[in-house]
Amino acid sequence: MNQAVDPKVDGLIRFRMDLSYEGSDFAGWAKQPGLKTIQGTLLDALELIFGKTVDDFAMRVAGRTDAGVHAEAQVIHLDLSVGQLKRLGRSDNVPAKLNSLLPREIRIKTFEKAPKDFDARFAASFRRYKYTIADSVSGWNPLFSRTRLWVTYELDTKAMQLAANELLGLHDFAAFSKPKANATAIRELKLLKISRNKSLGNVIEIELKADAFAHNMVRSIVGALVKVGAGKATPKDVAKALKSKHRGHGFKVVGPEGLSLVEVGYPANKDMAKQRAKARNMRSLGD
Amino acid sequence: MNQAVDPKVDGLIRFRMDLSYEGSDFAGWAKQPGLKTIQGTLLDALELIFGKTVDDFAMRVAGRTDAGVHAEAQVIHLDLSVGQLKRLGRSDNVPAKLNSLLPREIRIKTFEKAPKDFDARFAASFRRYKYTIADSVSGWNPLFSRTRLWVTYELDTKAMQLAANELLGLHDFAAFSKPKANATAIRELKLLKISRNKSLGNVIEIELKADAFAHNMVRSIVGALVKVGAGKATPKDVAKALKSKHRGHGFKVVGPEGLSLVEVGYPANKDMAKQRAKARNMRSLGD
Repeated sequence: MNQAVDPKVDGLIRFRMDLSYEGSDFAGWAKQPGLKTIQGTLLDALELIFGKTVDDFAMRVAGRTDAGVHAEAQVIHLDLSVGQLKRLGRSDNVPAKLNSLLPREIRIKTFEKAPKDFDARFAASFRRYKYTIADSVSGWNPLFSRTRLWVTYELDTKAMQLAANELLGLHDFAAFSKPKANATAIRELKLLKISRNKSLGNVIEIELKADAFAHNMVRSIVGALVKVGAGKATPKDVAKALKSKHRGHGFKVVGPEGLSLVEVGYPANKDMAKQRAKARNMRSLGD
Repeated sequence: MNQAVDPKVDGLIRFRMDLSYEGSDFAGWAKQPGLKTIQGTLLDALELIFGKTVDDFAMRVAGRTDAGVHAEAQVIHLDLSVGQLKRLGRSDNVPAKLNSLLPREIRIKTFEKAPKDFDARFAASFRRYKYTIADSVSGWNPLFSRTRLWVTYELDTKAMQLAANELLGLHDFAAFSKPKANATAIRELKLLKISRNKSLGNVIEIELKADAFAHNMVRSIVGALVKVGAGKATPKDVAKALKSKHRGHGFKVVGPEGLSLVEVGYPANKDMAKQRAKARNMRSLGD
């Protein structure tokens, strides 16, 4: 990963960009040769405006979403030199410029100078994700087929909430994440709420908030909750799996279509440096 | 179009099917050689279950949606012989069978014997459409990019409602529809309501209800309302255009992406024959 650049040293200015995307047709966030990704598509547009770069504008992202995952509130930072900024000319509406170059699936919301010590990834204090499921109660509305998991049976949201409660708090989520070298899966799950959204035809929304999420953690947890909701596992089974710290529990990882990053939180500006140092030291954060 | 078949004569049984679809990637409802259409895709699935037909099961649809238009509550009828029905075997869950054969963009909701004198098209007493617009107030959420019109400015919904009121009632909508040989554009617009949907991020929803709609009528009306909402035309201009009965008014037809058929109404069973005769005699109904 790129190191943060100190504006005092080389005249670079850090910007915060907020964006959203519908990830169905993309191979995830991270740039990959030969594949259509969100970052790759965004970099192409940025280079049309600011010129070619060798370091991808030192871009870093709050949540590195997987293939097919969406984001309604993604945050990134990028570093620009005075020379690059001059290429904007008099039209300094960067979101409008980028949106005219990007496909409809990616929309830039804001672009502004970042506060001191801002880092989209390491200064984030929490991530909030939402996973949406249409079951036999809500029915399947094809107008939302790209952003919801469809199951054919009815899910018992009360049982799901009981299982969810077993996962709340600070745990090693190794049983519910993809192993990664030199990284732990210790995370603090601050919120895990299951509800039906009446204004959206009673679809089930699973809201998850944590300091950060290990790789595949959201979809692994949702997979376990769906099995409980279907009556094929109990909240106790979920608690037992968590304690095992192993993935041999038989719960499946659900698909990416229902998942969306809906919020990234940052501390007050004065605490930015502290949060950044804490996250960097603690662990290699996933999405 | 196919004539309705009398079950007493040839043993056919009429079925009503309710379905929904996301039309972005389809060339409209009606079957067309070489093109991917909703009806064509549905007929392929039906023939896998009931066998090949020469008359497309005498299928008729309530709203013949154009390319790119969606339907959350479409209604069709089709006529099946006892021989065709026998092919179902013991599994008579036709919606589940069809849904397993169809792409996610098309979902069958119900399939049941139609009441006497039912005709999906001619017995319908009203159609209700919804057109959704994301303006600068609501912002653009790419998770809904396929089902909303995007405009870059703010729309004044109060001005739009004033213009809408000029169109309510029984009129010749020739100025707001595509001309069709041997057909009038006289329709009764029973509802035309503009509102912001707070639970969907303040997007603008335009709800239209009429006995039937002439071709392109919804999108022509919405085009006029958008121009008024943008401050580039007045409600009086819209009233004047309607009275002119000509399309030289400079209002544009908006794209299909924001449009969805959301309800089709039918009379009580005892009035079905009456409604059917009335609609057939009055005019050739569009969508």
